[in-house]
Amino acid sequence: MLERSAPNKVEAARRYGAEIVFCENDFAVRTATVERLSREQGKVIVPSFDGEGTIRGNGTLGFELLEQLPAAEVVLVPVSGGGLVAGVSAVLKQSGWRGRIYGVQPEVNPSLKVSLERGEPTTVPNAATVADGLVANRPGKLTFALAQQYVEDVLLVSEEEIVEATVQLLEEEKLVVEPSGAASVAALVRYFAGKQPAQKVVAVLSGGNVELGRLANMAKEHRRQQTAAPVRS
Amino acid sequence: MLERSAPNKVEAARRYGAEIVFCENDFAVRTATVERLSREQGKVIVPSFDGEGTIRGNGTLGFELLEQLPAAEVVLVPVSGGGLVAGVSAVLKQSGWRGRIYGVQPEVNPSLKVSLERGEPTTVPNAATVADGLVANRPGKLTFALAQQYVEDVLLVSEEEIVEATVQLLEEEKLVVEPSGAASVAALVRYFAGKQPAQKVVAVLSGGNVELGRLANMAKEHRRQQTAAPVRS
Repeated sequence: MLERSAPNKVEAARRYGAEIVFCENDFAVRTATVERLSREQGKVIVPSFDGEGTIRGNGTLGFELLEQLPAAEVVLVPVSGGGLVAGVSAVLKQSGWRGRIYGVQPEVNPSLKVSLERGEPTTVPNAATVADGLVANRPGKLTFALAQQYVEDVLLVSEEEIVEATVQLLEEEKLVVEPSGAASVAALVRYFAGKQPAQKVVAVLSGGNVELGRLANMAKEHRRQQTAAPVRS
Repeated sequence: MLERSAPNKVEAARRYGAEIVFCENDFAVRTATVERLSREQGKVIVPSFDGEGTIRGNGTLGFELLEQLPAAEVVLVPVSGGGLVAGVSAVLKQSGWRGRIYGVQPEVNPSLKVSLERGEPTTVPNAATVADGLVANRPGKLTFALAQQYVEDVLLVSEEEIVEATVQLLEEEKLVVEPSGAASVAALVRYFAGKQPAQKVVAVLSGGNVELGRLANMAKEHRRQQTAAPVRS
């Protein structure tokens, strides 16, 4: 893991039994470190997004969606390296589902958006975002190819919109979702809420690895900035 | 509302548009205050648990349960004044459902348990509990009568078990549930988990009015007290 990894994610990995090896805060160094450990110790590499097995695993969410929400017309999926959106969109489209799939990224890290526009995997500048799980600044080869084939477009959301969605999920829906996972709800609010014609939109919430104290502070600060207007209209 | 009411509950009521009138920290004083306001201002009284409309409203949860989880064999319901357990159990039993319904109370406030044993609504001593929504120290007339008819028994849970369930719902299930609402899960763990024969148990989670900073501290403190053993076995 990168040395700057969120302490609660490190702690969660340890709880699930992982032995953690830290490396310099650079994705290329991380890749090199993983390859070295694999060579030296014969360990299997499980790519975080650009691997066929990883993408297939993510794709199972598509099957669940077809089973539970067959009437969905639009599906919104948060995007970092693109593994989740690649898997879900491939399953949905290859199953004959006729809706549209959009990726969702922070405005400050539009790596898949830019890549789709350029027609090839493109590196964008590293950027900090409250959605600390959506920081891959370049899609993978496999994930890009699948997104190019199956994804309609990438919708961008602001930092403020991500915080708003995270707090709303927490306070109104009582769901603990990390900002990266709430980005899809931010896109739902910005691009679909109240628009005509009304559509059945599914927002994928992935994941919930968030330090609760941080979330509490985020909610408090956000409430403080709000006007005295009622939360529900 | 009592002067000692949790600030976040007061705030939530305000957000939903309520005008708050505070009174002394005594349930009898609260009842008198409500009756005075009703007389003076012609306002309708909505009892928090011992009213037919309140019980019927709570009972709709029973209809949802029959629709969504018809195979349930046991239903666990947190109990304060008994409105929820009365409504749910009346609907389930009057619908011909053949399972068992248990109320759940903190060990320190066994008001319905004692009342059922004595065969009449009984007042138990006031007690502080982490489940600050389960503090009514006497069931209502209506709720007692329905519980006597339809509820199997009341299961008691310790303060520590309630905290454990609250933290587990938060960290593993990513659900924000107040300790009062998590009491049903505490009972599930204590009385049903791993027991033979295995049964299909539904734990009702009600509600989520919890100050997040408090919840974060509760989780942190609880984790600190745990051994280094993995959370999942």
